[in-house]
Amino acid sequence: MANDTRQRILEACSICIARDGVRGMRIQDVCTQAGVSTGLVYYHFADRDGLLAAALEYVNVDSVARREEPVAGGVGSRGLLLELLLGEIQDDESVRAKSIVWNEIRAIAVFEPPLARHLSTSTAAWQSHVAELVTGHTGAGTEACRETALLLTALVEGISGRWLSGQLDTAAARAALKRGLDAILPERR
Amino acid sequence: MANDTRQRILEACSICIARDGVRGMRIQDVCTQAGVSTGLVYYHFADRDGLLAAALEYVNVDSVARREEPVAGGVGSRGLLLELLLGEIQDDESVRAKSIVWNEIRAIAVFEPPLARHLSTSTAAWQSHVAELVTGHTGAGTEACRETALLLTALVEGISGRWLSGQLDTAAARAALKRGLDAILPERR
Repeated sequence: MANDTRQRILEACSICIARDGVRGMRIQDVCTQAGVSTGLVYYHFADRDGLLAAALEYVNVDSVARREEPVAGGVGSRGLLLELLLGEIQDDESVRAKSIVWNEIRAIAVFEPPLARHLSTSTAAWQSHVAELVTGHTGAGTEACRETALLLTALVEGISGRWLSGQLDTAAARAALKRGLDAILPERR
Repeated sequence: MANDTRQRILEACSICIARDGVRGMRIQDVCTQAGVSTGLVYYHFADRDGLLAAALEYVNVDSVARREEPVAGGVGSRGLLLELLLGEIQDDESVRAKSIVWNEIRAIAVFEPPLARHLSTSTAAWQSHVAELVTGHTGAGTEACRETALLLTALVEGISGRWLSGQLDTAAARAALKRGLDAILPERR
């Protein structure tokens, strides 16, 4: 029950951020969206920073779920990787909302060290999942796979920024991402 | 003289954004930083949006200057391209400030269509300069070079985000960028 409320507040928070940005997000709007009292929000998240950090974790939950799936070796890994990366850019309201939350928090973390730490943890988790899939495909050493994963995830972030600001439509952004994967991690012949 | 004042206000605006973010930037702080009256700021830029758009153009001036340099073909182009891309990530206060301004405006453009249009114009100009250097190196067709330039510039944006939020230090960010260029636009054998 308490867990349901927490989820509901986080979903509401992610909707508010996607609509108004972190700058425009007011705790009161999150309460209205979630249908809960401000007291309940502060009970679960202590303060605005706590809510933002939890929202970041929340938008990261899909990746966490995928992270727990077993990683197949060989061609399977690259297919999964392509799917995982393309999953970040889709014509789907919830995917777009989550991407906006990430994008906002990335920008704001430049000025807010506590948020930067949460961002760093979330990004590292995502990146090591990607590195695992790279290893499954190439069998290369840990360091090389980590470097490849850094390029792939940074490219997703760069292309997502173009997509969210309307410089690329969904199809063009996905096509660019696929070309990027082909260049950075070519298919095995 | 009027031009000097304009430049001074834009430099001050870029310093304020780098320090406080666009969210924290107040016209009054820009005036104090530039040593001018609010009236003068509104005279030159009409409103806050006008000032932000002009600041984006201002931080883009370096690239514009480089864009006017003649593009050499062959190995020279790739060297210039590497230099141009690495130029975005340097241990230099002014480079970092400009990068923060870009990063902020990219994030905010998601919510502000007029700013998104300015961003799109600036990005397109930068990207076509990069495409020109790619053409100089590969001699490939326009569309292929444009696609390569999209990947390279999006990668710069993604890696810059990691750098600005302290997830990568300058050396690591530059090394990643160089590896990205090697993957996306390999040196000719």
